[in-house]
Amino acid sequence: MNNLDLEKVYNAAEVLSKIARKTDLHKSSFLSKKNNIYLKAENLQLTGSFKLRGAYYKISKLSDNDKSKGVIACSAGNHAQGVALAAKEKNIKATIFMPATAPISKVEATRSYGSDIKLIDGVYDDAYNAAVEFQKETNGIFIHPFNDIDVIAGQGTIALEILEQLNDVDAIVVPIGGGGLIAGVAATIKQIKPDCKVYGVQATGAGSMYESFKQDRRIELNNVSTFADGTAVKLPGEITYDYCKKYVDDVVLVSEDEIATAVLTLMEKEKMVSEGAGALSVAAVLFDKIPLENKNIVCLVSGGNIDVNILSRVINRGLLKTGRISSITIELLDKPGQLREVSTIIAQYGANVIRVRHNQGGEGTDINDCFLKISMETRNFEHFEQIKNALIEKGYRVTSVVQ
Amino acid sequence: MNNLDLEKVYNAAEVLSKIARKTDLHKSSFLSKKNNIYLKAENLQLTGSFKLRGAYYKISKLSDNDKSKGVIACSAGNHAQGVALAAKEKNIKATIFMPATAPISKVEATRSYGSDIKLIDGVYDDAYNAAVEFQKETNGIFIHPFNDIDVIAGQGTIALEILEQLNDVDAIVVPIGGGGLIAGVAATIKQIKPDCKVYGVQATGAGSMYESFKQDRRIELNNVSTFADGTAVKLPGEITYDYCKKYVDDVVLVSEDEIATAVLTLMEKEKMVSEGAGALSVAAVLFDKIPLENKNIVCLVSGGNIDVNILSRVINRGLLKTGRISSITIELLDKPGQLREVSTIIAQYGANVIRVRHNQGGEGTDINDCFLKISMETRNFEHFEQIKNALIEKGYRVTSVVQ
Repeated sequence: MNNLDLEKVYNAAEVLSKIARKTDLHKSSFLSKKNNIYLKAENLQLTGSFKLRGAYYKISKLSDNDKSKGVIACSAGNHAQGVALAAKEKNIKATIFMPATAPISKVEATRSYGSDIKLIDGVYDDAYNAAVEFQKETNGIFIHPFNDIDVIAGQGTIALEILEQLNDVDAIVVPIGGGGLIAGVAATIKQIKPDCKVYGVQATGAGSMYESFKQDRRIELNNVSTFADGTAVKLPGEITYDYCKKYVDDVVLVSEDEIATAVLTLMEKEKMVSEGAGALSVAAVLFDKIPLENKNIVCLVSGGNIDVNILSRVINRGLLKTGRISSITIELLDKPGQLREVSTIIAQYGANVIRVRHNQGGEGTDINDCFLKISMETRNFEHFEQIKNALIEKGYRVTSVVQ
Repeated sequence: MNNLDLEKVYNAAEVLSKIARKTDLHKSSFLSKKNNIYLKAENLQLTGSFKLRGAYYKISKLSDNDKSKGVIACSAGNHAQGVALAAKEKNIKATIFMPATAPISKVEATRSYGSDIKLIDGVYDDAYNAAVEFQKETNGIFIHPFNDIDVIAGQGTIALEILEQLNDVDAIVVPIGGGGLIAGVAATIKQIKPDCKVYGVQATGAGSMYESFKQDRRIELNNVSTFADGTAVKLPGEITYDYCKKYVDDVVLVSEDEIATAVLTLMEKEKMVSEGAGALSVAAVLFDKIPLENKNIVCLVSGGNIDVNILSRVINRGLLKTGRISSITIELLDKPGQLREVSTIIAQYGANVIRVRHNQGGEGTDINDCFLKISMETRNFEHFEQIKNALIEKGYRVTSVVQ
């Protein structure tokens, strides 16, 4: 394999200084327990993710002849926006293929940079095939989202910024999809500061680099499923896999609930919106997957392009999983005053009722029975248990609990 | 009135350099249309708001004797957290009075800084009275949230940072509650750069400074109601009012829907969580309340401490108000195939169905009638209109629309 020439990364940093934000590196007091945790906020990068770096550097390296042919990309998300903005800044025609199932907000965001958007029926692979077909017809330049040395060098500029912002960094934790981001960051940091550790993170349902890393060869997964959709890649790139093997210390996995909790934590504690993929590094630290103590660890928060509808669901899921929202269904005899008694008990314990459903004589109940489903805000699981036990003591029958 | 001595603000900046973040100033491409809009991200400040600045500087100026008495504050939100963290950093005992109705998340956040929290039944005024009582008993030092010259100087440090980050700033737009933030920012900037404009923003339902400004005297409102709860102040401070009259160019109002849209915009476009009060400045720019063109305008995003449950509701409200979620209720004859036909029409137009309710023979309907309520994601209002018209053309009767 060719190594990533540091000169290329320095050159990329120079080129990017005209357009990309040098994103903040914040210490997170909430996350700093076993280690000092810093957040590199690439979710606050232009276009909402680090992808702008690689795409812009790649496009800036094209010959004038290639530039005149226009660029082509296929992506349902961040790469699309990165290429679209980079092409706009460089006054190059861009044609972006997106699956028609992509969220409306991402399609509109990409369109807002002036690219020509082709919405293709079906899933990502269908859009990809259409893009390849289009490339053959037009001879345009296809911008790969990760398996490209210029793209990797662009992402590597993040490591230079981290070194400037926190010279005594001990470890960097990086989300992995196709592997472009971690390849660039790891190859750069390890050549400058070899004792700095680099850990990759993937979702359990999309662990292609994890499997490849463990089995010592590129593994293609049959299907990938995760709400960290920016990392849903079946097969790592050849170049990116080689760099991971050479430079990355370990790859760890996190679950969907761990990712949702990380997204919620970033919102509540750091006031930052991150997408599932963007929060993988924080999930790894939050759930203690990184085997370090008393070190300075940088979590790379790679992107913030999450559909707000999904964010609503993540919030609810996160609140449920941490005991901050709970629902309880109890059976009432259909007689007066019971709703009032139940409400009083809940209020006494300082919980906040947010929804009440009162079903009389529904399916599967006796004609006189009545179910009361109450959703409430609670401090944590113990708080909810206290309320549940108080209701049981008063003689109510709890038929189900959702937490 | 005494003027705010710039030396005091420089001193505050020096003192704060040890603890406060120098928050980023970002240009927002989305908001930059009539003017160049920059966001000063005090929502990313420690404790999630600018309040730390004033509280920390005030506490640092206390005599050792006063420090030994401990500090007292009353707040349901940001001031509580600011005082709590400042006291912790200074190793001073803090007692914070909060209304028992304060969101659990804010109570827990304040508690996490090690303060003694007193939850008082009732509203803010009850908590305030309890705090005053406690102050008399203990002789502790009451830290006022805004009407205090040291607190104002602490907030004024933001203006120094803005000047350093964007020397050719033409205007600063600032949320107003009690007026401490705008007093500090305006008094500082106008003494250094008198031609820089300063605009204050309040919610229509809590416009005490707006009214005072217009009527040329401090006006107390009978009640205030806004989801920008951080600015729900009935009566401006004496000092802060004087500074506003002297230094502020104008105060403008924004509606609740405008605030909600601003919060959503900051999330989607800037990946930042802001509370209602924090987004007032962005609402003012977004809805064209600032009479400037081709200028460099800084919107001060003052805080990000919004309860995530409320955030969920804001998202939904914002999506409705921008035509991105719409609900339509149509009457079906209860015969097979109608649900399928309706779904097909909606799919043809590229909208995404997110909820379906199918009510047969409910109240107020004929026994054979059936109502179908469909909630869907749409691109904008026109997109929804197209779908509605297509359904009407097919003979469906639309009984209600929620947008």
